[in-house]
Amino acid sequence: MTPGRPVPPPLATPIVPAPEIAPTPEDGAAAEAGVLAAAYGAVSGGSGLVPLTVARRAPKPDDVEIAIEFCGLCHSDVHATRGEWGGQTYPLVPGHEIVGTVRRIGSDVTDFAVGDRVGVGCMVDSCRECDSCLDGLEQYCEKGMTGTYGAKDRRNGGAITQGGYSSSIVVDRRYVLHVPDSLDPAAVAPLLCAGVTTFSPLRHFEVEDGDVVGVVGLGGLGHMAVKLAKAMGAKVVVFTTSESKVAAALELGADEVVLSRDEAAMAAADRTIDLIIDTVAAPHDLNPFFRTLRVDGALFQLGLPSEAMPPVNPGSLIRRRIAYAGSLIGGIAETQEMLDFCAEHGVVADIEMVSAGQLNDAYDRMVAGDVKYRFVLDTSTLQAAAEEANA
Amino acid sequence: MTPGRPVPPPLATPIVPAPEIAPTPEDGAAAEAGVLAAAYGAVSGGSGLVPLTVARRAPKPDDVEIAIEFCGLCHSDVHATRGEWGGQTYPLVPGHEIVGTVRRIGSDVTDFAVGDRVGVGCMVDSCRECDSCLDGLEQYCEKGMTGTYGAKDRRNGGAITQGGYSSSIVVDRRYVLHVPDSLDPAAVAPLLCAGVTTFSPLRHFEVEDGDVVGVVGLGGLGHMAVKLAKAMGAKVVVFTTSESKVAAALELGADEVVLSRDEAAMAAADRTIDLIIDTVAAPHDLNPFFRTLRVDGALFQLGLPSEAMPPVNPGSLIRRRIAYAGSLIGGIAETQEMLDFCAEHGVVADIEMVSAGQLNDAYDRMVAGDVKYRFVLDTSTLQAAAEEANA
Repeated sequence: MTPGRPVPPPLATPIVPAPEIAPTPEDGAAAEAGVLAAAYGAVSGGSGLVPLTVARRAPKPDDVEIAIEFCGLCHSDVHATRGEWGGQTYPLVPGHEIVGTVRRIGSDVTDFAVGDRVGVGCMVDSCRECDSCLDGLEQYCEKGMTGTYGAKDRRNGGAITQGGYSSSIVVDRRYVLHVPDSLDPAAVAPLLCAGVTTFSPLRHFEVEDGDVVGVVGLGGLGHMAVKLAKAMGAKVVVFTTSESKVAAALELGADEVVLSRDEAAMAAADRTIDLIIDTVAAPHDLNPFFRTLRVDGALFQLGLPSEAMPPVNPGSLIRRRIAYAGSLIGGIAETQEMLDFCAEHGVVADIEMVSAGQLNDAYDRMVAGDVKYRFVLDTSTLQAAAEEANA
Repeated sequence: MTPGRPVPPPLATPIVPAPEIAPTPEDGAAAEAGVLAAAYGAVSGGSGLVPLTVARRAPKPDDVEIAIEFCGLCHSDVHATRGEWGGQTYPLVPGHEIVGTVRRIGSDVTDFAVGDRVGVGCMVDSCRECDSCLDGLEQYCEKGMTGTYGAKDRRNGGAITQGGYSSSIVVDRRYVLHVPDSLDPAAVAPLLCAGVTTFSPLRHFEVEDGDVVGVVGLGGLGHMAVKLAKAMGAKVVVFTTSESKVAAALELGADEVVLSRDEAAMAAADRTIDLIIDTVAAPHDLNPFFRTLRVDGALFQLGLPSEAMPPVNPGSLIRRRIAYAGSLIGGIAETQEMLDFCAEHGVVADIEMVSAGQLNDAYDRMVAGDVKYRFVLDTSTLQAAAEEANA
């Protein structure tokens, strides 16, 4: 598809709940039509999640239509649906950890076939022309990647994208991933965001056998960082503020756990770590963590607190040539590499499955940190939950 | 020399001003004796610089005795002599940008000969055993490098090292640099600190033809960063708060100057820079500079403000995988590489020569930012200044 080519405007997004009218591959009459997909989303910052219906476009030549089976619940879904990041358009169907099977493909799609198990992560498009896109770093697209939900879909008439808490989605093939058959598809879903977000800085830093990786925070991202770093051959040290997480960290495969509020334990960790993956999204003082790094060590911060972080002491960086860096998900090729790596090493997320009717409770539990380690929505429950909510 | 081998205690450091009693290479009787060197230093945090005499040890087998010709004045000299960093022992002779000629060598020294022009930078020893030392990163020695002044000299009885505002110094050959003959020796002196401090991060980031390097601040370090980055083939953009420095920056070779308080100019610089060398040692907001960096860009902060920096916005780092890093001078091999690079490219510092009697005025002018760009002490004036001060 030619970048920037004008495309027909998409169907409008109706807010009325409705059952999905899904064509099957055998349904010749509907092969050219878009579908109405059952979904759950927010209609305002205070609405919570309610049943919705979203219009999905008919597949264009490069599109893949996916029957969604599972969608992970990411903390950013909570922020976005509640309007905590501002500038949100409603209705909004969240979800960017999507796993399903291919239901229809466009005429130019050759790398996916009907029935393939596939995934979609945090983006569904990017400019495809800038240096970042050409380098396979679409997440840093100079014109801004098109997020899987809540973003203006430039190549589709500027409609606001709607995410994976939904029975289906249509995505350009360039942003669709192959999900290895050997992995549990529900537990793969969180790999599409939490997995690649931690995989990317581990790979960028070229973690290998014998390196020591620190992981700060043990939530959805943190637990993936532990598993992935272990699979890369690293020794893993988990830093946590809560004694209650020590056993869980060791169970996940961590070699050591350091209570980060214990000054003596932190002093003992001085100059022992090569790379820290910091997954905490609340303001916290990084200086004690810098002191645990070796010369040329790095700390990658992945979470974006809504309030200011305490100041960094430049001396901590200068004295050991330490880098304090950020990292945003991963590119498409790297996401595929991550999925293949996970298949090779048998890595998936630890999940708790929820039905559509449990989504609002699950959000409250995520905010309270009460999940080990990722909720995944079973989208087969969307229709029943909508009917019950509207009964 | 065996690391850690006990050595005889050095001569005490008398505070009384005295003329130097310097043996010449022909002076056989004195060949085994230490010398009393004329110097200028502080006797308390409030004393300013006054004439002193320092005892220099007789060269041990691995030592090089250097007749100092020139010593650059670094901003850290001001902080240290005024006790602004705390924990200072007095008397204290500052100076770690030392150029001179070899006057005597120890019996095991083969890489230096009497009469060679040599330099000494910010360190005169390190443990020589840790990973950093073995990697040629002695500045990050795990046991702490031994600074050229004000540091405990572990291999010399724990005496406090005394620096280069002095007529001579004795340094282990491992920490002595060869100064290329083609360069003006006075203008080489600042290369030993300001030069290598900016050279090292430029090299670490592998700056090459066509890269765009930003330089924040145009003092002793900043002017070296401009010259070195240009010599490496980079396009150089100087960021300054003062319109009065625009012409000077262009004269030094900068390709562009951006007034960092001009929001429109900063917005125009968005995503244009690969690497920023930040030489400002006062607290300042880095977030506007992060926004000028490209994906995978880095900002190296070299100055250490005595007060807290404003908070870093992690989003600035996350959105482009940017690294905020520190860097401390350079290793010995790298310092030699820098000197050889400067000889190849004809790079030296822009200096203003001062006599010993002008040191206190020069300090005041440094604090006021009134120097282009580095003061260098002509040590041949030490004796006369001491006599005048004690007349």
